[in-house]
Amino acid sequence: MKVAGIIVEYNPFHNGHLYHLQKTKEITGADVVVAVMSGNFIQRGEPAIVNKWARTKMALLNGVDVVFELPFAYACNSAEIFAYGAISILNTLGVDWVVFGSEVGDINLLKKIAMHLAFEEEGFKKYLKEYLKVGHSFPKARELALKKISSDNVEFLPNNILGIEYIKWILRMDSKIEPITIKRIGSSYNDPTLGSGNLCSATAIRNNINNLELIKDKMPEASYKVLIDEIESGRGPVTIENFFKIFVYRSVIDKDFLKDQLDVKEGIENRFYKYVFSSKSAEDLLSKVKTKRYPLTRLQRIFIHSLVDSKVNQKILLSKKPYIRVLGFNDKGKNYLHTIKEKVEYITKLDSYTVKNPVYNHLLELEIKASQIHAIMYKDFYNYMQLEYKQNPIYISFS
Amino acid sequence: MKVAGIIVEYNPFHNGHLYHLQKTKEITGADVVVAVMSGNFIQRGEPAIVNKWARTKMALLNGVDVVFELPFAYACNSAEIFAYGAISILNTLGVDWVVFGSEVGDINLLKKIAMHLAFEEEGFKKYLKEYLKVGHSFPKARELALKKISSDNVEFLPNNILGIEYIKWILRMDSKIEPITIKRIGSSYNDPTLGSGNLCSATAIRNNINNLELIKDKMPEASYKVLIDEIESGRGPVTIENFFKIFVYRSVIDKDFLKDQLDVKEGIENRFYKYVFSSKSAEDLLSKVKTKRYPLTRLQRIFIHSLVDSKVNQKILLSKKPYIRVLGFNDKGKNYLHTIKEKVEYITKLDSYTVKNPVYNHLLELEIKASQIHAIMYKDFYNYMQLEYKQNPIYISFS
Repeated sequence: MKVAGIIVEYNPFHNGHLYHLQKTKEITGADVVVAVMSGNFIQRGEPAIVNKWARTKMALLNGVDVVFELPFAYACNSAEIFAYGAISILNTLGVDWVVFGSEVGDINLLKKIAMHLAFEEEGFKKYLKEYLKVGHSFPKARELALKKISSDNVEFLPNNILGIEYIKWILRMDSKIEPITIKRIGSSYNDPTLGSGNLCSATAIRNNINNLELIKDKMPEASYKVLIDEIESGRGPVTIENFFKIFVYRSVIDKDFLKDQLDVKEGIENRFYKYVFSSKSAEDLLSKVKTKRYPLTRLQRIFIHSLVDSKVNQKILLSKKPYIRVLGFNDKGKNYLHTIKEKVEYITKLDSYTVKNPVYNHLLELEIKASQIHAIMYKDFYNYMQLEYKQNPIYISFS
Repeated sequence: MKVAGIIVEYNPFHNGHLYHLQKTKEITGADVVVAVMSGNFIQRGEPAIVNKWARTKMALLNGVDVVFELPFAYACNSAEIFAYGAISILNTLGVDWVVFGSEVGDINLLKKIAMHLAFEEEGFKKYLKEYLKVGHSFPKARELALKKISSDNVEFLPNNILGIEYIKWILRMDSKIEPITIKRIGSSYNDPTLGSGNLCSATAIRNNINNLELIKDKMPEASYKVLIDEIESGRGPVTIENFFKIFVYRSVIDKDFLKDQLDVKEGIENRFYKYVFSSKSAEDLLSKVKTKRYPLTRLQRIFIHSLVDSKVNQKILLSKKPYIRVLGFNDKGKNYLHTIKEKVEYITKLDSYTVKNPVYNHLLELEIKASQIHAIMYKDFYNYMQLEYKQNPIYISFS
């Protein structure tokens, strides 16, 4: 059985995602496509607009065979750690390919750059240090250092960066996964405008979430229906703004609450404290706190991790393996899960014993906290506070 | 200069309060009436419907000469500690009388009972212990024990209880304050109905806060105008329900957050944890947690103190003196404040140095936290997070 892996957020699932999925099947001819998907908080440091169960439904209805969870600690993190978590899961599953979109669409170029990063040469390290010293953000410093030691040139755009990170971890893990890239079509990752075609970014859809008629054409029908149902049931849209008053509250009761939170260093916490009581919104606060070294998404991740009080340490995350948890599957996926049962230990339904099992490095406890915090913003939140325990994997049968 | 003291919450100021104030002036013939008023959280363990500054305006516009603050730690506490804080402030000020409403209206009866409580006799103590042991709440056990040792009989209704506590502390402090009681007219303290006359309880007004036309006749015009202005400016009405999601959030991020909070003992925290994730509202949660020993108001105070993370200890509160802080005054009050300047150290405007001064036993720091938490629920909360530092005492001049 040949298996293709994809790494997704589906926030929400739109036509571009469908194109990526179909291309994955077409190029690889895989028997099964498995997705590793962010849970209730995404890589950019925002709550997912609707929860992981709804987004799992979207994935399955559009042709993904199994959805696995990328744990909160990895999903809501830097490109490097996000990629580590996702590739680690696909590697444990033993998939044959990982297929991802990139702006450049040239796998050989991405591989060359990933090689430089995977086994950091002395020259590279030196330049990296220098660029960091003069105040560049880590991704920017890395980009500049790379240009110094290599003539291979690629624009450091979001999906190129993620692709390079996937390959880097495949190399470092000495994994047999073959990376394949598809050139992204339509608008770019962050383009906030819907445009006139039926392709746009997930960001554009989220920006227009209050005008559903406008986004209807940008999503497969099944996905749109799930989104509508979530919104009508009061389970979304969830945005970072929903959590701003809670963030302010935390600042009131604990003047030190940013201490030891993810990625909080170099005194960035003081910029938060300085502005938190005079900011109108999360957007307002983060735009005031922003620096060259701490761009918006990095600050959003600090915001979310502090809210969850995760106190995860990035180095430790890179030294552990994430758990393997099934969020949903179709008939083909069910069969696939059966075949891997002997060699891969995966979680289907949670109980408090599983959650507390130290073998999972507290990642499940954190996942539950994050999901409860997401659920607090639903209209009938009291029905969802224990959802992670109650919910079985989504099973969709087309037969 | 003869000074009468009153102890108030004015949540909000209504016709019954005006009657109490006028009777106070009439009976005592005092030159000045000073009020000790709860701040942004009241004795029943709820947020004040509008903030202390608005309620100070109501008091001054209706004829109170100076308003002093009863600090959060004392105000939002048992009748015993509430009374201790208030009498302690009036005693420091050196007022001549304290005038309070009571259901019974008989000062001699209240004094007799207060005597028993002030100097707990052995017999009384023994009965109290026994009644507590069989599961009665403290006020109930005390009532039953009193009946055992004394033929003086009084119904233990809310204002009788407060009155007895005031006298008890006057006795224990060996204070020169003369207590006077007025028989309450109109509906009782907790009567939730508005009734047909122009007198009703503050509870009834709060219950009908969304139907302003109904409550208009129950309040002096000046007070009603202040209330309207607060509501129209988005600074109220603030209710305990506004804070429920934050309470749920705290339960998510810290499973132990009730530990060491005010009055949390005997495992009552476990009843909170048991129901917090399945309750629809604060009311729903507290009605589930409620026991004979932990009636609603006691639980509401636990809720509020946990929200503020105050961790105040009742025994310590009874061993310290609250600070004296002026919230507002009129011309007569200004003159009075001038005359006491030499013998009483009072605070007018806050600055961070004053707030952190250990002489105030961290009560001011707590006051600011509580006020910020109250302010989080205002529409333009970001303009009010530092209100406690920005606000001068309210000064109303009628000349």
